[in-house]
Amino acid sequence: METKQVQAFGTAAATEPLKGISIKRRVVQAHDVEIEILYCGICHSDLHQIKNDFGGTTYPIVPGHEIVGRVTAVGEHVQSFKVGDLAAVGCIVDSCGHCESCKDGIEQFCENGVTYSFNSPDKELGGVTYGGFSKVYVCNEKYVLHMPDFKDLAAAAPLLCAGITVYSPLKHWGAGPGKKVGILGIGGLGHLAIKIAKAMGAHVVVFTTSASKVADAKRLGADEAVLSSDAGQMAKYARSLHFIIDTVSAKHDVNTYLNLLRHDGAVVLVGLPPAPLEIGAFNVVMGNRSFAGSNIGGIAETQEMLDFCAKHTIVAEIEKIDMGYVNKAFERLEKGDVHYRFVIDMNSLNEIP
Amino acid sequence: METKQVQAFGTAAATEPLKGISIKRRVVQAHDVEIEILYCGICHSDLHQIKNDFGGTTYPIVPGHEIVGRVTAVGEHVQSFKVGDLAAVGCIVDSCGHCESCKDGIEQFCENGVTYSFNSPDKELGGVTYGGFSKVYVCNEKYVLHMPDFKDLAAAAPLLCAGITVYSPLKHWGAGPGKKVGILGIGGLGHLAIKIAKAMGAHVVVFTTSASKVADAKRLGADEAVLSSDAGQMAKYARSLHFIIDTVSAKHDVNTYLNLLRHDGAVVLVGLPPAPLEIGAFNVVMGNRSFAGSNIGGIAETQEMLDFCAKHTIVAEIEKIDMGYVNKAFERLEKGDVHYRFVIDMNSLNEIP
Repeated sequence: METKQVQAFGTAAATEPLKGISIKRRVVQAHDVEIEILYCGICHSDLHQIKNDFGGTTYPIVPGHEIVGRVTAVGEHVQSFKVGDLAAVGCIVDSCGHCESCKDGIEQFCENGVTYSFNSPDKELGGVTYGGFSKVYVCNEKYVLHMPDFKDLAAAAPLLCAGITVYSPLKHWGAGPGKKVGILGIGGLGHLAIKIAKAMGAHVVVFTTSASKVADAKRLGADEAVLSSDAGQMAKYARSLHFIIDTVSAKHDVNTYLNLLRHDGAVVLVGLPPAPLEIGAFNVVMGNRSFAGSNIGGIAETQEMLDFCAKHTIVAEIEKIDMGYVNKAFERLEKGDVHYRFVIDMNSLNEIP
Repeated sequence: METKQVQAFGTAAATEPLKGISIKRRVVQAHDVEIEILYCGICHSDLHQIKNDFGGTTYPIVPGHEIVGRVTAVGEHVQSFKVGDLAAVGCIVDSCGHCESCKDGIEQFCENGVTYSFNSPDKELGGVTYGGFSKVYVCNEKYVLHMPDFKDLAAAAPLLCAGITVYSPLKHWGAGPGKKVGILGIGGLGHLAIKIAKAMGAHVVVFTTSASKVADAKRLGADEAVLSSDAGQMAKYARSLHFIIDTVSAKHDVNTYLNLLRHDGAVVLVGLPPAPLEIGAFNVVMGNRSFAGSNIGGIAETQEMLDFCAKHTIVAEIEKIDMGYVNKAFERLEKGDVHYRFVIDMNSLNEIP
C-alpha cells in the first residue's frame, strides 16, 4: 500500500520525553478520508499509554484521540465528506462491521477487536496505529465524524473522548428533567459531564474532594456542589440521586456514593482506577442499586453528541498549548494540574525540528 | 390493643438453642387477617438474625418469613380474604403506604422504614415483630398474599422469600426467550432461579463449585452446568451471558463472572456476603457492565410470582421437618447441607412442651 511520511510527536520508550518523529500514513484508499489535524486534545489515557501503565504499549507511540481538522483528500468512493469539510476522529478508527456489537452501533465492543486511533494493530500498514499528535490522519470515512461549526474549534476537540465518555452514560441512565444526577470529580470528564447533564435538563449535584472546586462547579452550571469530606453535607444526600457519573481514576470509596442513590440507581464508573474497588453487598442489594461502568460510545452516538453539544454551545474549558509544551503538560496532567483539558494547536508542530 | 398468647419457637440469646415460647399477637383489627400457619420455610437470613450476624437483633427472637396457612379470622373492613382461604405472608408486613417507594410497589424500600415479619419494630404492640415459627400470624390484609392451590403447599412456602428474591431480578433484567441467563450457586435461591428462569423462557447456564451439583443442576432444568473451577470450560462462556443471578453468600470472585457478560450485562447479587467484594474497573467499564444487587420484591410482585409459579407448577425442593428438628436444621444449614430448603410442618409445634 502506498504511504507518505508525516510529521508527528511521540516517544520510543516509557522513560523518554516525547519529541518530533516521522511516521507513515497510507495515501487515501477508495473509502478513506485524509484530515489535516488542526487541534488535538490530551486525555489522561494518552499518559497511561505513553507510560505503559496498562501494559501492551508498542513503541514508538504517537498518542492523541481527540482530533479535529479539515479534510484535505478523499478516496474515490467517499460519499459523505469533501475536501474542505471540518471533520473529527475520536477513539475508534476501525472495527469488523459485521459482529453484533458493530451492528448495534457500539463499535468500541467489536467482537473481532476494535482498532483504536493509536497503539492498536494497524490492519492496513501492519505495526500499530499512530494517533493525533501529528499533522495528518487517514481513516475510513465510516469512522470520521462531521464536525459542527463550533465557534472555538480547539475547545471542541475534547468532546471526541471526554465528551462522549460522559454523554453516553448520561443518556443511557436517563439524565433529563426530574432527574437528580451526581457528578463525582471535576476534571476533563467531570466538567463536561456537568455541562451536558444540565443541557439534558437534569438537576446536577457535584461531589469534589477539593474545596477550591466547589465554586467552580457552580460556575460550570452545577445546581449544587458538595465537599465530599463534609460528612454532614453528604448525609443530606442519602438516597436522593438517580445516578452518579464517577470520573475518578484513583482508588476511592464507592460505597459512600452507592448510599446516595435512590432505588434502582447506579454509580457509573468512567474512570479507570488501577486497583480494584471494594463494594459492600448491602450497598447494592438494599435499593437494587448498581455499580456500573461505561466506555466511550459508538460512532453514531459520538456524532449525536457532537451535534447535541453544538446545539447547546457546549465545549470544554481548555488550555491551548504548543507542541513544544507537551512534555510539561503531561507532567502537570499527572498532578491533576489542568483546567480542564490541554489542547494542542497543531500548527505549532511546524516549529518542531 | 387487645392481644392473645400464641405458641411459638424462638430463642433469648444468640448462643442458646431455639425452644418453645409464648408470644403475644394482636387480635384482628378492622383491616387485619389472622392466619393459622401450616408451613414455614427456613431461610439463611433466619440463621443470620438468630446469631445477630448483621447486628441489631432484639431477643427473644422468633424467626420465619416464608409463611403459608389458612385464614382463621378477618377484621370487619377486610375485603379480599375470608375465613378458610389459603394465604401467605412473606418478608414485608407493614410500610408507610404513602412514600414514593410504597407508591411504586417496592415496599421493601419504604422511605419511612419497612416492617419485616420478624425483628422489626412492631408499630402496633411495641417491641419487635415475631415471625412464622409460631401457630398464628396477624397482619394488615395489604401485606397478605393469596396462596394459589399448590399441590404441595409445604414446598411452596420457600417461594415467599427465596422465590421472590430471584423472580424479581430475573424479571427486571429481562429473562426470556433469546436470553442466556447465568445462575451462580445452587442452593435455596439458586435452585428456584433455575426453575423460574426456565419457565420465563431463558437459556439457563448454572455455575457451581461442586462437581456433585453439575448433574443436579440439569435435573432441575438447567440447559448447561459448568464447574467453575474448570478454567477451560469457563473460558468458553466469555462475553456470552446477558446477565447472571449471583446467589453466593460467601466472599467470591465476581470479576470472573463479570467477564462472562455480554455488553450491558449485569452480575446481580442476591446473597449477602459479609466482607466487601473487589471489582476491577476494567471489568465494568469494558462492555458497559454492572455489578448490581436486588432485594426481595414488593407485595404486588410477590403475588405475581406466586401466580406465575402456580401456573408453571414451580415449587422448591424441600426437606419437610418437625419443629423439634429445627436446631439441627440450622446446624446443617450453616454447613450448606440442605436440598434445597427446610420447611417446618407447623402441626409439629403442638408436640413442643
